[in-house]
Amino acid sequence: MKNNRRDFIKKTGVLSLASTVIPTLGFAASHTQSNRKSAKSIAPKILFFDVNETLLDLTLMKKSVGKALNNREDLLPLWFTTMLQYSLVNTVSNQYQDFGLIGAAALRMVASNNGITLSETEAKEAIVGPILSLPAHPEVKEALSQLKKAGYTLVSFTNSSNKGVETQFNNARLTEYFDTRLSVEDIGKFKPHVDTYAWAARKMGVQANECLLVAAHGWDIAGALWGNWRAAFISRPGAQLYPFAPEPEIIGSTLTPITHELIRLKQ
Amino acid sequence: MKNNRRDFIKKTGVLSLASTVIPTLGFAASHTQSNRKSAKSIAPKILFFDVNETLLDLTLMKKSVGKALNNREDLLPLWFTTMLQYSLVNTVSNQYQDFGLIGAAALRMVASNNGITLSETEAKEAIVGPILSLPAHPEVKEALSQLKKAGYTLVSFTNSSNKGVETQFNNARLTEYFDTRLSVEDIGKFKPHVDTYAWAARKMGVQANECLLVAAHGWDIAGALWGNWRAAFISRPGAQLYPFAPEPEIIGSTLTPITHELIRLKQ
Repeated sequence: MKNNRRDFIKKTGVLSLASTVIPTLGFAASHTQSNRKSAKSIAPKILFFDVNETLLDLTLMKKSVGKALNNREDLLPLWFTTMLQYSLVNTVSNQYQDFGLIGAAALRMVASNNGITLSETEAKEAIVGPILSLPAHPEVKEALSQLKKAGYTLVSFTNSSNKGVETQFNNARLTEYFDTRLSVEDIGKFKPHVDTYAWAARKMGVQANECLLVAAHGWDIAGALWGNWRAAFISRPGAQLYPFAPEPEIIGSTLTPITHELIRLKQ
Repeated sequence: MKNNRRDFIKKTGVLSLASTVIPTLGFAASHTQSNRKSAKSIAPKILFFDVNETLLDLTLMKKSVGKALNNREDLLPLWFTTMLQYSLVNTVSNQYQDFGLIGAAALRMVASNNGITLSETEAKEAIVGPILSLPAHPEVKEALSQLKKAGYTLVSFTNSSNKGVETQFNNARLTEYFDTRLSVEDIGKFKPHVDTYAWAARKMGVQANECLLVAAHGWDIAGALWGNWRAAFISRPGAQLYPFAPEPEIIGSTLTPITHELIRLKQ
């Protein structure tokens, strides 16, 4: 299994451009789809970008969340995972709810489990404001600019609400880089529901295999690939590929090496 | 909101029987359904029981998982939440996979994120064996026995596989208490997907509002209530109701006070 991953890394030639350690090493899925190899040499028609953590740096929000949890910053991964779990609890119950509000509810549950009292208002203040004010990761603007110059159509595709991502992009000054902004709010199901990817492709008027998702979450990469999209994984600190999912065709520690690979496909 | 919960607690009269602190206090959902009041005085036709943590004590498995994580027992809630998150990732991608194997994959992801190297085999050994050998919580057998005597049909309804729950019940000596064992394996979607509750009701030949779920997980209670079932929540340590979901009609710190309330409905 580790050998498969090493072969894969060798083939893409992307990791040599990455400056940081790749924490996903050894997590190769054993069932890489053979039809992906031929598709790899063709540029995707549309590049879809996840937003939170993929483009925007969550560090600031982690500070406000840590503060709400009596500086128990060790609880941050549990809070974030609980938020993701409950976004899917709402999804599979057909009870769509704003992502930020689910984050606030998750924060109250984690706090309560650890003997920390947190009012509904305090929880919302720790999440909703900060999530709208996140800065872009340092390499993002230059990378998006190069991808646009290379002729790609760039679409943001997020679990944040429409109004949420509009505000996030205004604050992070990312608005101008994207041709279209898509939010799961319009379909009422969170990623990685297979319907969300099918919906996004249909919205852009393309087939699933003409789409490529760039994301820093293993579950998002898994959902895209299971939905017959292509995928590039940013292995930011704390990000992990899902062992059961197929392999993304590109892996890089930031958006920069992924951008180089995507531009190569256009040449 | 806190007042609503206090009124609710007062109304059910169940919490006074509970010997431990109720950690869900202050988490009342504001939209208790008014039609639930009249239903409350009627006994449900079938009692469905979640299994892991609800009936079986996870403490032993937590030890083996903690050991696999270099004694980082603080990571246990993150592992369990990651397992639940990914069970839903598989569900919304129509990629059902054995719950124990998802647990092992989640363990590898959490380990890797914390600089702990864990092979696929080591992860499986930490999860799959121990989850099959959990003992019942101390009050469970007596409570189930009383419910059967009161004339209830008892059905287990679990995210564990068919073979898994069969082995779990043999080892915990719970087999004899149940009329039927249901596993989500047969529908290929994990709880709390709304389809799983509809499927279980249909399997038992009853309507949704004739079913009552007993569970120690807020997400399971939420899914059941959103699926128009009734619900009783065991607020075991670490368990939390989901703030956005409707209220369950019974809450108790163990199965004992819930059993008293359910028997009262039969009288």
